Amino acid sequence: MVASDNLLTKLTAGYDESLSRNGISGRRVAERLSALSEIGKTVDGGVTRPGFSSEEKQAKQEVISWMKAAGLDVTEDGAGNVIGRLDGIEAGKTIMSGSHVDSVPHGGNFDGPLGVIAALEVVESWKETDYHPSQPFEVVIFSDEEGTRFGAGLTGSHAMAGHLKKGETDLLKDIDGKSFETVIEEYGSSLQAVWDSKRDLRDVELFVELHIEQGKLLEKNGLSVGVVKGIAGPVWMNVTFEGDAGHAGNTPMDDRRDSLVAASHFVHAISSLPRQFSDTAVATVGKLNVYPNGINVIPQRVELTVDIRDIHEDKRTALVVAIVEMAKEAAAAHNVNVDCQQTLAVEPVLIQEKLVEDMKDSISEFGMEPIELMSGAGHDSMVIGREIHAAMLFVQSRKGISHNPEEWTDLKDCIIAVHVLKDFIEKQMENGR
Amino acid sequence: MVASDNLLTKLTAGYDESLSRNGISGRRVAERLSALSEIGKTVDGGVTRPGFSSEEKQAKQEVISWMKAAGLDVTEDGAGNVIGRLDGIEAGKTIMSGSHVDSVPHGGNFDGPLGVIAALEVVESWKETDYHPSQPFEVVIFSDEEGTRFGAGLTGSHAMAGHLKKGETDLLKDIDGKSFETVIEEYGSSLQAVWDSKRDLRDVELFVELHIEQGKLLEKNGLSVGVVKGIAGPVWMNVTFEGDAGHAGNTPMDDRRDSLVAASHFVHAISSLPRQFSDTAVATVGKLNVYPNGINVIPQRVELTVDIRDIHEDKRTALVVAIVEMAKEAAAAHNVNVDCQQTLAVEPVLIQEKLVEDMKDSISEFGMEPIELMSGAGHDSMVIGREIHAAMLFVQSRKGISHNPEEWTDLKDCIIAVHVLKDFIEKQMENGR
Repeated sequence: MVASDNLLTKLTAGYDESLSRNGISGRRVAERLSALSEIGKTVDGGVTRPGFSSEEKQAKQEVISWMKAAGLDVTEDGAGNVIGRLDGIEAGKTIMSGSHVDSVPHGGNFDGPLGVIAALEVVESWKETDYHPSQPFEVVIFSDEEGTRFGAGLTGSHAMAGHLKKGETDLLKDIDGKSFETVIEEYGSSLQAVWDSKRDLRDVELFVELHIEQGKLLEKNGLSVGVVKGIAGPVWMNVTFEGDAGHAGNTPMDDRRDSLVAASHFVHAISSLPRQFSDTAVATVGKLNVYPNGINVIPQRVELTVDIRDIHEDKRTALVVAIVEMAKEAAAAHNVNVDCQQTLAVEPVLIQEKLVEDMKDSISEFGMEPIELMSGAGHDSMVIGREIHAAMLFVQSRKGISHNPEEWTDLKDCIIAVHVLKDFIEKQMENGR
Repeated sequence: MVASDNLLTKLTAGYDESLSRNGISGRRVAERLSALSEIGKTVDGGVTRPGFSSEEKQAKQEVISWMKAAGLDVTEDGAGNVIGRLDGIEAGKTIMSGSHVDSVPHGGNFDGPLGVIAALEVVESWKETDYHPSQPFEVVIFSDEEGTRFGAGLTGSHAMAGHLKKGETDLLKDIDGKSFETVIEEYGSSLQAVWDSKRDLRDVELFVELHIEQGKLLEKNGLSVGVVKGIAGPVWMNVTFEGDAGHAGNTPMDDRRDSLVAASHFVHAISSLPRQFSDTAVATVGKLNVYPNGINVIPQRVELTVDIRDIHEDKRTALVVAIVEMAKEAAAAHNVNVDCQQTLAVEPVLIQEKLVEDMKDSISEFGMEPIELMSGAGHDSMVIGREIHAAMLFVQSRKGISHNPEEWTDLKDCIIAVHVLKDFIEKQMENGR
């Protein structure tokens, strides 16, 4: 690996040094993103750091060394969540910020690490400017957020929030067939220690997470950051259309029970439904399989999935009802049968109005238009946000690409986001006094 | 296998013996269908007799023994086509009738064998009634009609018509990787003998094939038989819609380039196009694959096939143009790209109007309404029909099921069809004089 290829060089090329002020250092943030990019690095320039892997552990060790150098008291709970704590002038409740350092296979260098490094950069800036927060502050690294290892995810935040159920974790197996218990023991902990990592979150006032957008709205609007007003929980449905197979040449058009024509009617029709219910609602048919899938055979069966999301649970419910109705309507129109099964329903999280306004004030402070975004993906802040107040700041990500080595955020946008995060946290502390 | 299970018992149960008259024997036809059903028999009650297999050969040997007993002169050409010839009172041109005895894997007992046994039954009836045809008559078994062995099919009729090209057969490999040449040699012939089996068809006046419908129209109309007015050649197209992948949660509905929504628009829309062009036209999307096909990923690419058929080539061409236009329209409506490639275009065969009318007269003779049908599937008569006149008679097949052990035709319908075939052939001979 030659120097010109590494992330540090790419990030700092053309960076405007005037953004490094008030104790925030663009170079330090770039160095830290670059250091983590070397752990679990893949030939395509991405990273593979599964939850509870040695690579995730090594990334945590690297951050712990920075935390200690910055004067934080570091602890790790039984679920592998790392907490770097800075006491406040007064005791009081804690403000917590951070994200995760695990990745999907061949993932990118910003999804997770940027939120951890940004929270730590706030501490660094305080240290450099000799600022002493009025109340405790914690930088947190949650374990196994992505969930590609066990197909679950958000493990660390779920453990801290006390949501992990023994029966559920008992069923988990990773791709090598290893049980959750085995993996946790190899990681150096135990199932019991995972249960024990449930924290009394009443001593935490607020969790704030900085994260890349994984969407294109900020880029489209030429903005570095945006405030998240809600995290849309998904409803997943399996929809099966069942008709009759038949020879494509010998069955007249009027004598068919073509499951794919019905499914197509449905897929096309529901694409215009979400906007009738909510500006933030989305519905996606991502997976569709045809049986028998032969060039000259009328499709007997189509199995498809629908992913339906909104930050407003009532509107999402109304949309789900309309989608099920449309499935029945499409099936009836083409004389086939249909079956709809809901397989998942995750509660959406609405961010407290006051926190959205506070974040918008912090964004405006830096001369930018403060736009509101919805998060369609799940985050640790969604989990923690069910227990205590949570806020989220999104940073522009190029073309909305994530979970891919092509994932990219300009250092300029990273640093503007750290400034906004710092401003927001400091104002929460001042208002809290 | 107990006696009650075999095809003979099932066929003759409830058979009305009064249909066995004028030298035609329901019992003999049932016995012969049953005898062939034992060759390559599968546990599910179907048969597996691939082209040029020992099972196909054994089935031919069985028919040859019946042909000889009926007084036919039997020859076999280099492509394995079996011809049982009965000289006429006068020399003149030959009338030929028959079908094939190979099957798809786990195929049924009527697709092919019925047409061979029916043509032979006409000879049997002449023998029993001491009828001497005025011109020569030939019962033919074409080799390897189904084409599951080499993915080509109609091999015997193509060889007889002189359509087989050396360059094409050189490329053929069966599922075991054996070349066409090797298979032909193992069968006991040679590539050269296959080329040499091209026949000067100018000495054949007409080929008439009796075949199960493989569709549901006769059953729906309560009819035993119907006349085929044309064999629809297929046009096959590969259509690819290409948009952008994206996270199902983070991409607003108005900011998507969803290839599956566009493809669905297309599939739904074209299902109503064929009837705008022709009563006999059909269009089928049988195969559709989504990429990456993930539950929470907006589909980037959809690849699908369209099978378009009609017996009228001009109307089929107009339909193909309309379908390509619709693909472009659907792509434009959803801001994705589309590419259409035609991969196959088989010329349709229209049956001569006079032959259709003659067959209708023969059907009316037996007190049945003479309905016209289209054949959507290819048959040996389609191949021979490019060189000389060909006619086709369809027999009711239960639920339109074929290529399956469930394939079924009542003996009553088989025998009515033999009567019609006999009448039609005799009248062609009388008219020809």
